[in-house]
Amino acid sequence: MKTKTLAELAEYVGGRVVGNPNLKISSAATLEGAENGEISFLANRKYLKLLRTTKAAAVVVQEELESPAALLVADDPYYAFTQIVVLLHGHRKHKKFGISAKASIAESAALGKDVHIHDFVTINENVRLGDRCILYPGVFIGPDAEVGDDCVLYPNVVIYDRCKVGNRVIIHANTTVGEDGFGFATHDGVHHKIPHIGRAIIEDDVELGAACAIERGTLEDTVVSKGSKLGDAVVIGHGTRVGPHCLLVPQVGVAGSTTLGHHCVAAGQVGISGHLHIGNRVTMAAQSGVANNLADGAVVFGSPAFDANKAKRAYSLIKHLPETVKGVRKLAKRVSELEKGR
Amino acid sequence: MKTKTLAELAEYVGGRVVGNPNLKISSAATLEGAENGEISFLANRKYLKLLRTTKAAAVVVQEELESPAALLVADDPYYAFTQIVVLLHGHRKHKKFGISAKASIAESAALGKDVHIHDFVTINENVRLGDRCILYPGVFIGPDAEVGDDCVLYPNVVIYDRCKVGNRVIIHANTTVGEDGFGFATHDGVHHKIPHIGRAIIEDDVELGAACAIERGTLEDTVVSKGSKLGDAVVIGHGTRVGPHCLLVPQVGVAGSTTLGHHCVAAGQVGISGHLHIGNRVTMAAQSGVANNLADGAVVFGSPAFDANKAKRAYSLIKHLPETVKGVRKLAKRVSELEKGR
Amino acid sequence: MKTKTLAELAEYVGGRVVGNPNLKISSAATLEGAENGEISFLANRKYLKLLRTTKAAAVVVQEELESPAALLVADDPYYAFTQIVVLLHGHRKHKKFGISAKASIAESAALGKDVHIHDFVTINENVRLGDRCILYPGVFIGPDAEVGDDCVLYPNVVIYDRCKVGNRVIIHANTTVGEDGFGFATHDGVHHKIPHIGRAIIEDDVELGAACAIERGTLEDTVVSKGSKLGDAVVIGHGTRVGPHCLLVPQVGVAGSTTLGHHCVAAGQVGISGHLHIGNRVTMAAQSGVANNLADGAVVFGSPAFDANKAKRAYSLIKHLPETVKGVRKLAKRVSELEKGR
Repeated sequence: MKTKTLAELAEYVGGRVVGNPNLKISSAATLEGAENGEISFLANRKYLKLLRTTKAAAVVVQEELESPAALLVADDPYYAFTQIVVLLHGHRKHKKFGISAKASIAESAALGKDVHIHDFVTINENVRLGDRCILYPGVFIGPDAEVGDDCVLYPNVVIYDRCKVGNRVIIHANTTVGEDGFGFATHDGVHHKIPHIGRAIIEDDVELGAACAIERGTLEDTVVSKGSKLGDAVVIGHGTRVGPHCLLVPQVGVAGSTTLGHHCVAAGQVGISGHLHIGNRVTMAAQSGVANNLADGAVVFGSPAFDANKAKRAYSLIKHLPETVKGVRKLAKRVSELEKGR
Repeated sequence: MKTKTLAELAEYVGGRVVGNPNLKISSAATLEGAENGEISFLANRKYLKLLRTTKAAAVVVQEELESPAALLVADDPYYAFTQIVVLLHGHRKHKKFGISAKASIAESAALGKDVHIHDFVTINENVRLGDRCILYPGVFIGPDAEVGDDCVLYPNVVIYDRCKVGNRVIIHANTTVGEDGFGFATHDGVHHKIPHIGRAIIEDDVELGAACAIERGTLEDTVVSKGSKLGDAVVIGHGTRVGPHCLLVPQVGVAGSTTLGHHCVAAGQVGISGHLHIGNRVTMAAQSGVANNLADGAVVFGSPAFDANKAKRAYSLIKHLPETVKGVRKLAKRVSELEKGR
Repeated sequence: MKTKTLAELAEYVGGRVVGNPNLKISSAATLEGAENGEISFLANRKYLKLLRTTKAAAVVVQEELESPAALLVADDPYYAFTQIVVLLHGHRKHKKFGISAKASIAESAALGKDVHIHDFVTINENVRLGDRCILYPGVFIGPDAEVGDDCVLYPNVVIYDRCKVGNRVIIHANTTVGEDGFGFATHDGVHHKIPHIGRAIIEDDVELGAACAIERGTLEDTVVSKGSKLGDAVVIGHGTRVGPHCLLVPQVGVAGSTTLGHHCVAAGQVGISGHLHIGNRVTMAAQSGVANNLADGAVVFGSPAFDANKAKRAYSLIKHLPETVKGVRKLAKRVSELEKGR
């Protein structure tokens, strides 16, 4: 942990100070959890009340607001705060381990400079591993696979043969990349496995959570494009292409041969069917079931999913179905009465 | 396996025998699968029919019922039966393995008494491991992490740096504790990773299923409180607090910064949104999507989830929507007719 | 990769050639991705347009259709194509590794002929391993477990004690078989673990995806029957029996003590409750929540799930609930007007 003055932090993030610029800040916390000397942030006005009672020394905000804390006003407070957390605390430090004698590394593997390969790692034939990669214990890199520079593979990550991981990729523990997809030809009631000739490709700056499974393609590659972030337990089907800078939250599942454009967001437990085309900047609310193509900018909700504005209203009416049905029944009686009286 | 008389078992669980107290019992089985000499149980009257045809020698029941088997009457038959299964069969016996020379253990790690550390285990710097722990092959304990007494970590369990596991915790294979949460600040279309300063804390007597992922907190800790049991493939988001004695069944997902009270039950595939407050003794039916705070004792169902009594009725009416809509259309015609005739 | 003439391929799959039988074919591709010299297939008329523009040298089809490519007409084109992919590309080739000196193998384990046991594998006491099995790094086989002939266990697969895996079984990375099920007797607010005496049994020709979790049975065995294929992140509850030749797509969850008949299909994220009886050839659409027994041949959709034909219509009407409710309100007004005028 480093210590900075509030003025230094403001300069670092391009913001301005309201209050004492000489405050010394050495760590970050939530509005509720902060103690004296800590910096916090307000990104959502829902938490305004906490801003007024916080014990934080300073708070990153978007505009001047009432608070006992000093303020650091920045255009994008959460981004500014993130920069500050990186500055003060840094990302995880990885031990300089070197190459373990207890790892199994094929002679034909090409290792970059300054790589750290822990015990019980397996690197197979013809693997190409970039510079400064960190492979934690139990990592397996299959034959002919490629991993770029500055990657961190946490314990027990498995990369199947021929798959390709870009630069600055982070993969959390127990995640699998490139297993065979769910592809079978059913004939006379027996399911025959189709070989999966395609690969799984994880592009630059992707992060995969723990316990994910990214299937390799049957004939064409499965791709998670640059800058996309996948949460825990996400499953991507064979031949699917996740576009750049998507956010797929934990437990999302995308079936095979679907394409997602750039900057799509799928919230928790969303399921997307196979062979679909999802446009750019599409947002899918939690548990949505997406069964149709979606145009650029679509925001959907529900299972089956449709336009979120309409869907929120529509799904909320399910609650009132009993009254609705009763109302129809009563109306029918009244109409019958009227008909009799005619 | 031990052998006990039915009278001994009844005394052990505080129940009473109806039938021959001298029956020798050495194993437990289901009503359907039991063979002579085995004990079974009836916890649900739905299976009354099986009680009448069972080949079990004895059955644990709540009240005297007709059966060819002897009866052991106990107030809480499933609990009594569980005690009997423990007595007769015991929990899994773990080999006395000692500390493997094939494990990688940092010199600075502090190991308790009578620990069993299998091959290919990695214990990093400054780890504190309690007494009588069993670490199966492929387990990874990150730097500065702490594991209490009497824990069992099955193969390939990964505990990230600084995380804390209490006493008598059981974690099943391929589960991850303390990976970075899904936290990114999006700025100019690029997702910037926020360092996760918080930890994941697993309190005493927790059991985690296989393939779970428990994110560490961004700024505050993620906590699974004492006595809670999580099924397979459960994901807990960063900064979320699962209260004591909760039951989260397989494939449940809880997003970040949510708190669950004590004795909550979430059935299969339930999803709970972030930043919510779920009270005590809340029950969420399978596949529920919980998007709002829930008061103590709430029982909910559906996606979106609401009061289960109402929700069961409401969701069941979806089935009849076609008739309802048709009914409204017909009514509209009849009303038009009436209006014409006015 | 082998090279075959189109005539040879046609003979191999029992089809007939329309076009040049002497075309040399050495690899397979999609209609869109194929280049000269490659063979593709058309299994769905939805892609007819691609057939007319494909650059494939030949296409496997069910009937004569217009295409610049030569045609291989076969009754079941996807099956024929699968056979061709196997012929040309083959299934994954596994290195002849032998038995690693870095694996931990109990003396009492019985290993079959021509097995390949990679580094960091653990084989416990009394394990029986069949012929020609391939165990990748990090695989763990618990005490008294049994694995048949010709199995492939990918990295970090965990088989718990006493479980049984049949012949020709493929299990993908980071999958767990036989962990304790979610079984607790709650007494005075505390959840007491019931020992799981049952096993998990994976029968012949089963394939399990990555990150699956197959619970062992409490009292009776959990069974995945012969020829069934499970996708990634599928969870099977304790004591559940999945019948033969089922297809359970990624992220499906089946709770405990349920039986599925043969040839059932559960699409992505389907959840099936416990203690149910699902018949033969039952199909469950994506995200369905199955809470009731289902008869042979049932096709269901929705959560709660019911007959798919009705359910598709019914669930699609949720979208129109706002109009429906508004329509009822307007009708009520019109009826009130009529009543006044009476």
